[in-house]
Formats: sequence, structure tokens, C-alpha cells
Amino acid sequence: MKIRVYYEDTDTGGVVYHSNYLNFCERARSEAFFKLGITPELKNGHFVARKLEADYFKAAKLGDTLEIKTELFEMRSASFTLLQTIFKEDKKIFELKITLAFITFEGKPQRLDSKSKELVLSLF
Amino acid sequence: MKIRVYYEDTDTGGVVYHSNYLNFCERARSEAFFKLGITPELKNGHFVARKLEADYFKAAKLGDTLEIKTELFEMRSASFTLLQTIFKEDKKIFELKITLAFITFEGKPQRLDSKSKELVLSLF
Amino acid sequence: MKIRVYYEDTDTGGVVYHSNYLNFCERARSEAFFKLGITPELKNGHFVARKLEADYFKAAKLGDTLEIKTELFEMRSASFTLLQTIFKEDKKIFELKITLAFITFEGKPQRLDSKSKELVLSLF
Amino acid sequence: MKIRVYYEDTDTGGVVYHSNYLNFCERARSEAFFKLGITPELKNGHFVARKLEADYFKAAKLGDTLEIKTELFEMRSASFTLLQTIFKEDKKIFELKITLAFITFEGKPQRLDSKSKELVLSLF
Repeated sequence: MKIRVYYEDTDTGGVVYHSNYLNFCERARSEAFFKLGITPELKNGHFVARKLEADYFKAAKLGDTLEIKTELFEMRSASFTLLQTIFKEDKKIFELKITLAFITFEGKPQRLDSKSKELVLSLF
Repeated sequence: MKIRVYYEDTDTGGVVYHSNYLNFCERARSEAFFKLGITPELKNGHFVARKLEADYFKAAKLGDTLEIKTELFEMRSASFTLLQTIFKEDKKIFELKITLAFITFEGKPQRLDSKSKELVLSLF
Repeated sequence: MKIRVYYEDTDTGGVVYHSNYLNFCERARSEAFFKLGITPELKNGHFVARKLEADYFKAAKLGDTLEIKTELFEMRSASFTLLQTIFKEDKKIFELKITLAFITFEGKPQRLDSKSKELVLSLF
Repeated sequence: MKIRVYYEDTDTGGVVYHSNYLNFCERARSEAFFKLGITPELKNGHFVARKLEADYFKAAKLGDTLEIKTELFEMRSASFTLLQTIFKEDKKIFELKITLAFITFEGKPQRLDSKSKELVLSLF
């Protein structure tokens, strides 16, 4: 997935604001669902960030085209972990390891049913 | 209401990103509700922007303390219009005239019932 | 230009946060520059919002694909005005009339030199 | 430092968008500088995120008042690490461990000079 850096993504330091790299990664995760004609809001629940680790290697700036690669790192019964990497001209500039928990619409953690698990495995 | 300008509000041009002044004004509108211990989500509906006019006089930048003044400009049966002004050290830097329509939670326009109307009149 | 609506664009009301439509329009303006291999930061200055009018007709929500059309409304000596319209499945949902002033990097208003004027005329 | 949750901070899931907790923490870091009448842009450089780990325990929502506590975790020659915790009614809802590197305005990593180091030690 390709992302263009716009003014809204930058800050007065002249580069992309640090938390916006997380937004870029969330776009890539959501886009995987959108491509199937669905949203990440499943019938019986949706996903929330539970834990993440991020490493910043190089800054992106206005007008840059970034590329995001997403791969499944670990699948568990009630959550899964992705490894997402952002590249700028084939150079790794950011890496995110994020664990997403499956919760009910009331906000309670729940196990991924087999259909939702299959979906996740097919997406990433 | 006072607002501090943080990194997230700025862009690579070195000043506050143009749409964030609208966010600042929205904070001031919401804060009026929060001060009464309620949210802008009323029992039977909530408010959405229908129309706005904004004038930018001077830029704000990182670390600035801004002050927002909000006054009721016009009350109608299904909407109301506010005039919101942002000051930086007593100098007017931004002005917003915004019309907010009352809608149902399904998104249909609706008349403000007398209780909601009274609430709006007491807030602004 | 096509825009996808992601989580970051929405709010707890279930629709796109009102000021984010301005961001979408800004992306379309910037993209016009990026397509020429340049940024909106010209050699001798850049552009800031001076005045805008926005009309909200219908809400967009998570996963929607929006289309933005941009046309030049008026060219003046030190600023220009664009008309930008956002469509969702061929239905107009938002309209923006925005005046952008040309300023020096120190923030002073300045006339558009003939080269910058030509550039703007070629972009929109 | 206290933070109020506004519409712009939430998403269509009904809670605060995951990356905005990082923004709240950044506000707390910047506010420490602002309180001294300075900004995080020092004379010879500024700070960028190099690495972070975040844990999400509970969600915040529209109108919540959050409190942020910031403490120094480790000081090194060219960076420092903070531990920042967000509370909602005395309950820990989010924790961030963030390493900030000192860089020149050209973006090169550099050692913290003794004056900048002293400043950081006095702030956190």
C-alpha cells in the first residue's frame, strides 16, 4: 500500500509527526478489509490496539511517497500481532509490531471465532 | 476557553494547520456541554456542521496560548449559528461562523425540541 | 483525486469529523503540485488559507471512497480562489470555496509573480 | 497535566483513536518546556522519537478527563527515555515508554550538551 505525505501529516519540525506513522499503518490494516468489500467492524466484534512497539529509523517529509508492508507475526486465540514496515524509496524508515485484540461492541475481550480467525489469516 | 498549540497542531509551514482552528472551536463548543456534566450527544439527537465561513487573520504557532470566545449568532427551529473568535494576546487571529443542525442518531434532520433549544440558549 | 475514509478520519458520531473534509481538499490541492514533481513550497513563497466557506450536504463514513474535483474560481494578484467539491458515488456531499494567499517564508503577503501565477493557472 | 477528550480525538469505534494517546503524551512533554517559557526547539537542536513501547489497558471516550504523569526512565549521552502514564479517574489506562533522540536542525543525531542535559533533568 502506498501513502502520500500531505501537510496534515507533518509538524513544525519539518517532518511527519511521530504518531502519524501509526495512522499510516492503521490505513494499511483497514485497506486489507476494504479490498474484500468489508470493514474491520465484523458482525460480532472489532479490533483494538493492545500493545505496540515502534522504531523510527528515518524521517519522512511533505510529498514523500511511502510504501507499507504488513505481515502476520503471531496468531493467538483472542488477538493477533502484525509486523508493519514503512519504506521510503526501498529504505526502511519505520517499523511497528502491533497486537490487536478482538473485542465485543461493548468493549469486552473475546476469543476470535473460527470464521474471524480465518479472515485474519487470509488478510495478512 | 484557552487552548495551547502543540506539535500535532502545526505543519511543516511552521504554523497551525488551517483546519485545526476548526478543531479548536469545536473543543470550545463541546466544553460548554462538558461543564454542565453532559456531552453534546443529547437524548434524542446530536449536532452536525451544516455550513461554515472562516476568516484567517494571523497564524498561530507552537507554544502559543489561544483564547476562544463563542457567542450565539442566530437560533432557528432545527439549527443554530455560532460566532467563534480566536485571539492570541488579545489580537483576533481567526473567526468562524458555523451553523449546526440538530439530527437524529440515524442522521435525519429534526427540529430542536424546547428542552434542547433552552439548553443551547443557556450554553452560548 | 480519490480519497479513502479511514478510522482516523471519523469520530464517535460515526461519520467523518467536520474539519477533515478540509484536509481532504488540501490533499487534492497538494497532489496537483506533487504530480508535477514539485511541492506547494515554491522558491519564493507558499500559500496559506485566508478565507473559506464550506457546505456539508451529506456525511461520509468509514470505508467510503470519495472523489474530489477542484476548479479555479478566481485569480487575483496576491491570491486565488478554488472551488472544491467532494462526491460520494456521484453525489455531492461537501463543497468548499477557499481563498489562498501567497506569502513569503517570513509570513508577509506578496503578489504572485508571473511564473507562480502561470503555475497556479496550469494546476487548477 | 490534564487532558480533555474531544470529538477530534475519537473514532467511529466510539473511543479515542489509538495513536492519539501518543499525542496526549507529547503534549505533556511539550508543556514541561512551555511552563519554563521555552519550546522543545532548543538553540542547537530538538528531539525526535526514536523508539517507543505502548500498552493499552482501557479505552477513553468523549468528555473524559485524563491525567498524564511523566517521569525520566533513563538518561543517555544522545537521548533519554521517559515513562508516561495516562490515568482516568486514578485508573491506569495507557502506558508509554518513549526514547527521544537529540538531533541537529539538519536531522543529524548529536550528543546532548551539558546545558541541554541539565534542562532535561530539570523538566522530568
